[in-house]
Amino acid sequence: MRATIIHGPGDIRVEERDYPSVIRATDAVVKVTASCVCGSDLWPYRGVGKAGAPKAIGHEFVGVIEAVGDDVTKLVVGDFVIAPFVDSCGACPQCVNGVTVACDHLTSWGSTDENGDYVEGGQGEAVRVPQAEGTLRKVEGVTEPDAELTASLLTLSDVMSTGHHAAVTARVGPGRTVVVVGDGAVGLCGVLAAKRLGATRIIAMSRHEDRQALAREFGATDIVAERGDDGVARIRELLGGVLADSVLECVGTKESMDQALRSTRPGGSLGFVGVPAGGPEIPIRYLFANNISVGGGMAPAHTYIPELLEDVLAGRIHPGKVFDVVMPLDEAAEAYRAMDERRAIKVLLRP
Amino acid sequence: MRATIIHGPGDIRVEERDYPSVIRATDAVVKVTASCVCGSDLWPYRGVGKAGAPKAIGHEFVGVIEAVGDDVTKLVVGDFVIAPFVDSCGACPQCVNGVTVACDHLTSWGSTDENGDYVEGGQGEAVRVPQAEGTLRKVEGVTEPDAELTASLLTLSDVMSTGHHAAVTARVGPGRTVVVVGDGAVGLCGVLAAKRLGATRIIAMSRHEDRQALAREFGATDIVAERGDDGVARIRELLGGVLADSVLECVGTKESMDQALRSTRPGGSLGFVGVPAGGPEIPIRYLFANNISVGGGMAPAHTYIPELLEDVLAGRIHPGKVFDVVMPLDEAAEAYRAMDERRAIKVLLRP
Repeated sequence: MRATIIHGPGDIRVEERDYPSVIRATDAVVKVTASCVCGSDLWPYRGVGKAGAPKAIGHEFVGVIEAVGDDVTKLVVGDFVIAPFVDSCGACPQCVNGVTVACDHLTSWGSTDENGDYVEGGQGEAVRVPQAEGTLRKVEGVTEPDAELTASLLTLSDVMSTGHHAAVTARVGPGRTVVVVGDGAVGLCGVLAAKRLGATRIIAMSRHEDRQALAREFGATDIVAERGDDGVARIRELLGGVLADSVLECVGTKESMDQALRSTRPGGSLGFVGVPAGGPEIPIRYLFANNISVGGGMAPAHTYIPELLEDVLAGRIHPGKVFDVVMPLDEAAEAYRAMDERRAIKVLLRP
Repeated sequence: MRATIIHGPGDIRVEERDYPSVIRATDAVVKVTASCVCGSDLWPYRGVGKAGAPKAIGHEFVGVIEAVGDDVTKLVVGDFVIAPFVDSCGACPQCVNGVTVACDHLTSWGSTDENGDYVEGGQGEAVRVPQAEGTLRKVEGVTEPDAELTASLLTLSDVMSTGHHAAVTARVGPGRTVVVVGDGAVGLCGVLAAKRLGATRIIAMSRHEDRQALAREFGATDIVAERGDDGVARIRELLGGVLADSVLECVGTKESMDQALRSTRPGGSLGFVGVPAGGPEIPIRYLFANNISVGGGMAPAHTYIPELLEDVLAGRIHPGKVFDVVMPLDEAAEAYRAMDERRAIKVLLRP
């Protein structure tokens, strides 16, 4: 089968690999019908962080169960499933607490599992899923979703769940005022999540016309193109002299965290989901002086999927619109280039 | 009248000052019936932070209204009132949001107000309270509380409200497991607040027998005397292999924040109310990796007083027990020594 392999910065190749099969009784094999490129995939692509040897990449995928191990009873061949962006056991205290991303038996896609066995990356034709029942979410009543539904289901793997996590950790709720820092796919999903959770005023910070348009479609009431002091001043002006109740930090840089902190009103909450890319530590005195709470991290997509899925299936939200480009898997290298050069918001890959 | 003045590190004097009077129409003058020494008063006493010129000190007091300005209609002479530990307007966006400690017109006790007029410290015989209606909380139906009730009412000025703030920002709720770092008066009130909010398991970290006893009386189910790695291991053992859902940081040092962070389970919440005394910045990658949220700051006592007061008046909580020593105001210097040397948990001063 074909799979996407990163060989080093800027070097993405689609290569032939062995087709996966069930190794242990708790495994399932998923035939991937759609996957995609994540903003965080661009970090190794840009040479940020450790390079390492050639490695299968991709952690967002949906597809159909092709095979299951003997202990897998809740999933059967033919089920359409969403894979959260990490593999989790479903039984340890962290999973029971809903924090599946801190699972005691966590496995990453494109890596090896606890037993040292290879696990495929998501940007390929098929993946062996260890701990299948603790990881996968079945989409009830759906076997062959159309392109639009597939796209929205795929966002629940990571990007929409992550936008939702930003909103939840920023304590968005009915009537709250919201600022979203970052107009990538996560930030846009953060806008949608804030709208879904009842925010009445949602300010998207964006300089790109296409993203501004999608932000408005997702529920943004205002767009702020300014940054730094000017951005803070504009937010204050829009909100009648006060900063925002809830701020979603969806980038992960020093600048974006600083912008987010300074956009939060005293007593407000900041949710951050951008992987801190060598970002700064959080200034404790600023938090103390302003009574600001900060929370975030990797989204426990497995925990969030049921409630988000319900809204997707009911047609109440259409997060799949963040995919502005669809490419065949063979063009994965071009998909990375398009996102790196900001020619695409997010690229969906069809095997 | 007599008032407590700090002249420099270790130098506390009770001196004669002019009796305050109403200056502006929104003022009230409160005759202090009880005040006390705060752990944060020990910072300047110990020479931490700026020294400055001789300055009136004390920010926790209760008493009786002696005079009001023409615009004060909700308070009358003879009302028994609690003064939150800052003076706030009650009308700006921050006050409307309940974050009175970030009031746009904030005034500190023992300082000058927005108009440059002197405001007495709380450890004295009387205080002019600017913005009286936005600041003071009247105790309905009470004019001459006995010693026990006075003590509990006095804690609402700061220490009990602060313990409550730690619990609220640590998201304590029914069934949550809680660790309280710090066995000072704030930590002990944090235990009481956690119990009041429905926590089922409350671990107090304490090495002092008298404080351990009070912690148990306030609702602690377990005491952990160990610190550092040993403390974390003991908490994990007590909680069946997991760390705490909610952790209250009630000290403000690098060590206590580190202890608190490492005692919080993945997905848990840390509330911090110890004034960061040159403490470290918060490690963002640790928060991200563990999905821990952190919040805190100065407690908006004015906002919290009504609900806490209800429980005090009904006899459901007795936070006044944190005062293990009562002294006449004239012995303020000894009160500071007793707290500095940890001979007293918290000293109540009677003018």
